[in-house]
Amino acid sequence: MTRTPDSVVRSYIEQHQAAFLADLSDWLRIPSVSADPARSGDVRRSAEWLAAKLRDTGFPVAEVWETDGLPAVFAEWHSGDSSAPTVLVYGHHDVQPAAKEDGWATEPFEPTVIGKQLFARGAADDKGQVFFHTLGVRAHLAATGRTAPAVNLKLLIEGEEESGSPHFADLVRREAERLAADVVIISDTGMWSETTPTVCTGMRGLADAQIDLYGPDTDIHSGSFGGAVPNPAAVAAELAAALHDADRRVDIPGFYDGVIELTDRERELFAELPFDEAQWLKVAKSYGTRGEAGYSTLERIWARPTAEVNGIWGGYTGPGGKTIVPASAHLKLSFRLVAGQEVEKVREAVRAWVAARVPEGIRYELVFPGATRPCLTPLDHPALESTVRAMGRAFEQRILFTREGGSGPAADLQDVLGAPVLFLGISVPSDGWHSVDEKVELDLLAKGVETAAYLWGDLAENFRPGA
Amino acid sequence: MTRTPDSVVRSYIEQHQAAFLADLSDWLRIPSVSADPARSGDVRRSAEWLAAKLRDTGFPVAEVWETDGLPAVFAEWHSGDSSAPTVLVYGHHDVQPAAKEDGWATEPFEPTVIGKQLFARGAADDKGQVFFHTLGVRAHLAATGRTAPAVNLKLLIEGEEESGSPHFADLVRREAERLAADVVIISDTGMWSETTPTVCTGMRGLADAQIDLYGPDTDIHSGSFGGAVPNPAAVAAELAAALHDADRRVDIPGFYDGVIELTDRERELFAELPFDEAQWLKVAKSYGTRGEAGYSTLERIWARPTAEVNGIWGGYTGPGGKTIVPASAHLKLSFRLVAGQEVEKVREAVRAWVAARVPEGIRYELVFPGATRPCLTPLDHPALESTVRAMGRAFEQRILFTREGGSGPAADLQDVLGAPVLFLGISVPSDGWHSVDEKVELDLLAKGVETAAYLWGDLAENFRPGA
Repeated sequence: MTRTPDSVVRSYIEQHQAAFLADLSDWLRIPSVSADPARSGDVRRSAEWLAAKLRDTGFPVAEVWETDGLPAVFAEWHSGDSSAPTVLVYGHHDVQPAAKEDGWATEPFEPTVIGKQLFARGAADDKGQVFFHTLGVRAHLAATGRTAPAVNLKLLIEGEEESGSPHFADLVRREAERLAADVVIISDTGMWSETTPTVCTGMRGLADAQIDLYGPDTDIHSGSFGGAVPNPAAVAAELAAALHDADRRVDIPGFYDGVIELTDRERELFAELPFDEAQWLKVAKSYGTRGEAGYSTLERIWARPTAEVNGIWGGYTGPGGKTIVPASAHLKLSFRLVAGQEVEKVREAVRAWVAARVPEGIRYELVFPGATRPCLTPLDHPALESTVRAMGRAFEQRILFTREGGSGPAADLQDVLGAPVLFLGISVPSDGWHSVDEKVELDLLAKGVETAAYLWGDLAENFRPGA
Repeated sequence: MTRTPDSVVRSYIEQHQAAFLADLSDWLRIPSVSADPARSGDVRRSAEWLAAKLRDTGFPVAEVWETDGLPAVFAEWHSGDSSAPTVLVYGHHDVQPAAKEDGWATEPFEPTVIGKQLFARGAADDKGQVFFHTLGVRAHLAATGRTAPAVNLKLLIEGEEESGSPHFADLVRREAERLAADVVIISDTGMWSETTPTVCTGMRGLADAQIDLYGPDTDIHSGSFGGAVPNPAAVAAELAAALHDADRRVDIPGFYDGVIELTDRERELFAELPFDEAQWLKVAKSYGTRGEAGYSTLERIWARPTAEVNGIWGGYTGPGGKTIVPASAHLKLSFRLVAGQEVEKVREAVRAWVAARVPEGIRYELVFPGATRPCLTPLDHPALESTVRAMGRAFEQRILFTREGGSGPAADLQDVLGAPVLFLGISVPSDGWHSVDEKVELDLLAKGVETAAYLWGDLAENFRPGA
């Protein structure tokens, strides 16, 4: 395959930028706030607007998909080559609530360009990042002279991401056949910074647990009985404290079974990121670091499994004192998981650990309300290498790697479709997600378009999933 | 001194029993509920009734003492012997709330004799036990032919004990001179059982503490930051868990400094008590024992200092999960103290322990809202030996020893007056303190009268405080 000069792609993008921004602004004007029942009509309008726009873009299939909640959009464009890889792009068209009165400098649903920034709710999270794929695929076609993309391109644009994706896993399972893909690209994340473009290679999983501990039938007098019967609040504290050893490693036997350790290359690449711990602590609103010995802060939040006390309560919590042995105490824990850990095995380890530690005389219930699996694509995965190359061409810079410490519906796609997940996003930390004055950097948005324009050709050439 | 045959005392008591019970019943009819502002007039009436009755009994001085709350009663009867010991008897004339609708079989403020039990609110806690001293001192005079008791006898009968004695320490300090005594006898406790008469020799002290721990400025996302910053809920748990070592000893350096250990004799005597652990657990509404290694349950609750988690809270406590590192967490602790421990030294030990254990990045406040000192009278104290002898004569049985695990205003008397404190009570666990169907056993009430009748002579003979 002959590579079209990147300058061709760039001039195509430049020529179409004004129309692209005008279209994006139209979409941003639709206040598709999924959390607000009064806006459900707008979410539907947003889905219909997008489906129409994708048909305009050239997608032969662009449908509004119903769920038990708010609608998603699905689009599909076959390459015509039966051996081409199939790529599923994920994003969402719903947005967080926003109102001028919250302190916005501009009307959140009246997109406003100021300098090289476009301000609007959804500009970065996630309409802008979904939308760069429309011009991206057109630039890809223009530059290659193709009439269909070099990969089989599918888009799934959810309408309830900002409401916790309550129907997303069901939708993916229901439509697994039509969603089938060799790789999933999530365009709902960010980069390290304007000057340090990065690709995210994975998200942590999550398993949460609640432990309810019961001691005496009622609160009892600590003078008469204290020091001689087990105190469920003390036991809750003992469990929470026993989660970690002195090195702040999770001290539950079997917890680390299967964990895919960071490679030396990953650690070196993480270490190249211009990380300013003092600045990070300000963002974390925290006053010190504390974590697993032997790992940096970035490694701790991105690549290491953790156990966290999200809530603990038991006994008297009002003003003054009350000398009791409380009747009950409760713990809400969550475990962040990394690739290689299996949710069910972690739960089994937690069950055995709790059973072994709760003393006689304390009854307990342990429940695991939910879980999300981790996902990780190795640095040498060919689809990841294609993404890095495409991004490198767009940014004319070396691309570094990040991971995401949180957990998200990406794992549903990975699990149901059995495909690796990559994260291609051009948002930056200053974009104001979920906050006032959300914006997208126009230069970065153009880089997103350009990356998408290069990516499909590179993937078609270098990623042969069957091989 | 020639001892009057005990039969003389007994027949005197028998002759006066009917009038004694009629008087007690009059007093019990006054609903002196200190917790109910609408009953404050009744508490005052109760004080006035008692002062008049003590004057009738022969006390040359019997006064209603005002406080900033409800009134107490003070009475005094000099022996006329300048070398005689001075004894201060403590009790209270206020009672817990009670209403027939709570499930009483009888009207709580209409004393009712059924068989050999007198049912009424206050029958055991504490009017009955205060009142046995009236007939007791008359029997003492009748049997010895004296016109004044053999000791300088003082009574202080509080009116706010059931409301937490808010003005008691102030009152004792204000009247310290008139209350001066060589020994304090608390008649507001019980015995082991109807068949096992006992004397209580001490109460534990109490120091409570609250620790407020602060981490991030707000709750932060556990996916983005968890595992890399300190979590105040985890630190609260670590502190609570670190209170005890594997042997359930309090693991705060210096905590046990000065503790007066149980003597072998005390341990042997405790072990003679017919203690049924299964039955005790039922009363404790608990399902197992847990405490300091090397000590029995009774030793743990009576004679060992403890650390108890009274309350713990932090983070999310609602339904479902919330993946946060919470901004703050809180601990309410209380320490039971035993003789030899100094409140200020314990506080200093706790301060140092907390300071050493709270990790960087967590700010905290530690406050000690209150404290009550422990009190203990050694088994070989002559006043205690007199009490045991007097009780042994009344019960015609060997008297064993208990202690009280709780903490109370007895310590105020001990501290301000600098006198040892003994506990002479004839109530039994089935008497229903603070519950429905409170009663006193008439046979035991008579034994209380008889013990008081013997005690003053024995003390005058055997207890020479100056010696």
